[in-house]
Amino acid sequence: MSMLKGVVHNLANQSKRATPNRSRSAGTKLLLSSEERAEALFLPKVRAFCNSTDIAKNEAEVIKHENTFREAGKTKTVFDFKSYMHQKIKSVNRALDAAVPLREPLKFHEAMRYSLLSEGKRVCPVLCIAACELVGGQESTAMPAACGMEMVHAMCMMHDDLPCMDNDTLRRGKLSNHKVFGENVTVLAGYSLVALAFEHMATATQGVHPKTMVRAIGELARLIGPEGAAAGQVLDLLSGGKSDTGLEELEYIHRHKTADFAEAAAIIGAMVGGATNEEINRLRKFSQCIGLLFQVVDDILDVTKSSEQLGKTAGKDLLANKLTYPKMIGIEKSKEYAQNLSKEAKEQLVGFDPEKAAPLLAMADFVLHRQK
Amino acid sequence: MSMLKGVVHNLANQSKRATPNRSRSAGTKLLLSSEERAEALFLPKVRAFCNSTDIAKNEAEVIKHENTFREAGKTKTVFDFKSYMHQKIKSVNRALDAAVPLREPLKFHEAMRYSLLSEGKRVCPVLCIAACELVGGQESTAMPAACGMEMVHAMCMMHDDLPCMDNDTLRRGKLSNHKVFGENVTVLAGYSLVALAFEHMATATQGVHPKTMVRAIGELARLIGPEGAAAGQVLDLLSGGKSDTGLEELEYIHRHKTADFAEAAAIIGAMVGGATNEEINRLRKFSQCIGLLFQVVDDILDVTKSSEQLGKTAGKDLLANKLTYPKMIGIEKSKEYAQNLSKEAKEQLVGFDPEKAAPLLAMADFVLHRQK
Repeated sequence: MSMLKGVVHNLANQSKRATPNRSRSAGTKLLLSSEERAEALFLPKVRAFCNSTDIAKNEAEVIKHENTFREAGKTKTVFDFKSYMHQKIKSVNRALDAAVPLREPLKFHEAMRYSLLSEGKRVCPVLCIAACELVGGQESTAMPAACGMEMVHAMCMMHDDLPCMDNDTLRRGKLSNHKVFGENVTVLAGYSLVALAFEHMATATQGVHPKTMVRAIGELARLIGPEGAAAGQVLDLLSGGKSDTGLEELEYIHRHKTADFAEAAAIIGAMVGGATNEEINRLRKFSQCIGLLFQVVDDILDVTKSSEQLGKTAGKDLLANKLTYPKMIGIEKSKEYAQNLSKEAKEQLVGFDPEKAAPLLAMADFVLHRQK
Repeated sequence: MSMLKGVVHNLANQSKRATPNRSRSAGTKLLLSSEERAEALFLPKVRAFCNSTDIAKNEAEVIKHENTFREAGKTKTVFDFKSYMHQKIKSVNRALDAAVPLREPLKFHEAMRYSLLSEGKRVCPVLCIAACELVGGQESTAMPAACGMEMVHAMCMMHDDLPCMDNDTLRRGKLSNHKVFGENVTVLAGYSLVALAFEHMATATQGVHPKTMVRAIGELARLIGPEGAAAGQVLDLLSGGKSDTGLEELEYIHRHKTADFAEAAAIIGAMVGGATNEEINRLRKFSQCIGLLFQVVDDILDVTKSSEQLGKTAGKDLLANKLTYPKMIGIEKSKEYAQNLSKEAKEQLVGFDPEKAAPLLAMADFVLHRQK
């Protein structure tokens, strides 16, 4: 019971922490009252969907879902998230393909491309682009940073699967990188993708002030490094099998391991798109919620789906005796927490141009309802 | 015999390629004729030392060596390389200690600090600082980049020693990182040091134009990444045991694996110090020679010294059936090549303020004559 109390307490604090800053400071778009927010953003159909507790809803249905909203001067705008994702993933894949051409040494570049170009959700690159577009920037401006995010993400997966880490033979329905290219090439190719991420971001981004670029590069490095995602990964690794770990540690792991990564994608996209500091802070909170949500759902899927359904080894957290939300608070409370995180994420977008916010609103649903 | 011919041909080309650009372009300090160069830089004592073929000269003696030169307005200046290195290494170690404080998760930060702060030559950080000072910059300006170089270097050593790579248990006279902290922590700590290198460089460098910082970050990433040092590491790994590899491949490996790394240190230091493009190009050539020289000497030491003398496992290249200069062209020709590289490196410094060039001139000797 005390564990459940802890969750409730945690959720309450979580909600308090993330209450959006609604001060009417000059030069921002975040000027709506809470009453206006609810009224302006969602028509009943969408609101009902957002309040749904059916986390097992079919993914195909979810991504077909059309967020409908109204705005001053427009009576209705329809947003098709499936088409949006399809188009963005296509652009990202094309850019990734061009960023890592196949050259000598062939095996090395093949190893990088194998993981980088394998079929994936591309949540982080799309988050990066959507954040850029949210504040009025162009897709092309955010694309090098978006590719950089996917490069670092690919490295994480390659290293995570190594025998000395999770020892996984399957990833996205294919053999893990080291099973194809050997552990030594995987270690080097992984590290190379990190270097390439910084190179690509620093040299291929066009039309952004160098001061902004230095800030964005510093943020990326901080959020994926020893105070960010890597700290979460390490604690996740070191806590495996320990029985004396609690919710606080679990929260720390997921906030760093996944949410910091999402934060990097969102705020870097926003920065190169020309965001104000207040807009950047909103996106920090949004992406922290989305990242944590992604991990909570991941934990749930690990115990509710088969390897075939996931395209990777199911039940591996359980086998590795890893800390997970279902293990700590049970499936139902985990689902409830996921719902709250999705709701909280959406609250951060209140006051932005609703048309430009539509992809991120839909993304919060997508992450909540994904089935693999 | 054809192999030796190849070496001679290679050396001749090498010398030709690196002939300094002596065009009297405006705004540079590189304005001396070849006659003036020789006269301006070296007194007979130093010239004799530079021409020495005694690579086995005692290291302590070498670093005590005083480069003596004369310059317009000054009759004589004495440079003590040993004191210079001692002071710079002390500064670098202090900065590294501050850049990676011991914090939670403790084991993770201990792993990073274990390799990063272990006794080392600090050649790359000092090269970075010396290049900055050569063009009129301050040590403090180059320090974050210098620390970044050592962080990436530490990662390379940590990953190189892994069982799936060189499988080495000894490094700098201590147990390898994974032998103390476990392979999984070593992989993550290594990657984290790379992220930290970029973060530290981007956030801690003071007084440098952001445009220069973006360029320097891009160069660092390129030179340590899949077109730079990592490509050399991979080819080194993949060529082990093959009998059909030649000098060209060996040169490629060392130029990328080590020389690209040295190049990054030198040109980034020069950039943040305010160098012109011509000065940067000189430092590219200088550091390529120094880097290659370091590797040639490394190959020689591997077969001529004991593990105790080196502080790491001796003869490991031979055991791993790796390509090395002694294996390809013999010890004597390798020593001759090392001499030529040192000479060629020094030629790149002709025309710079001799007092400011003194540390780099001495470094060329130090790398040539090091005993471990």
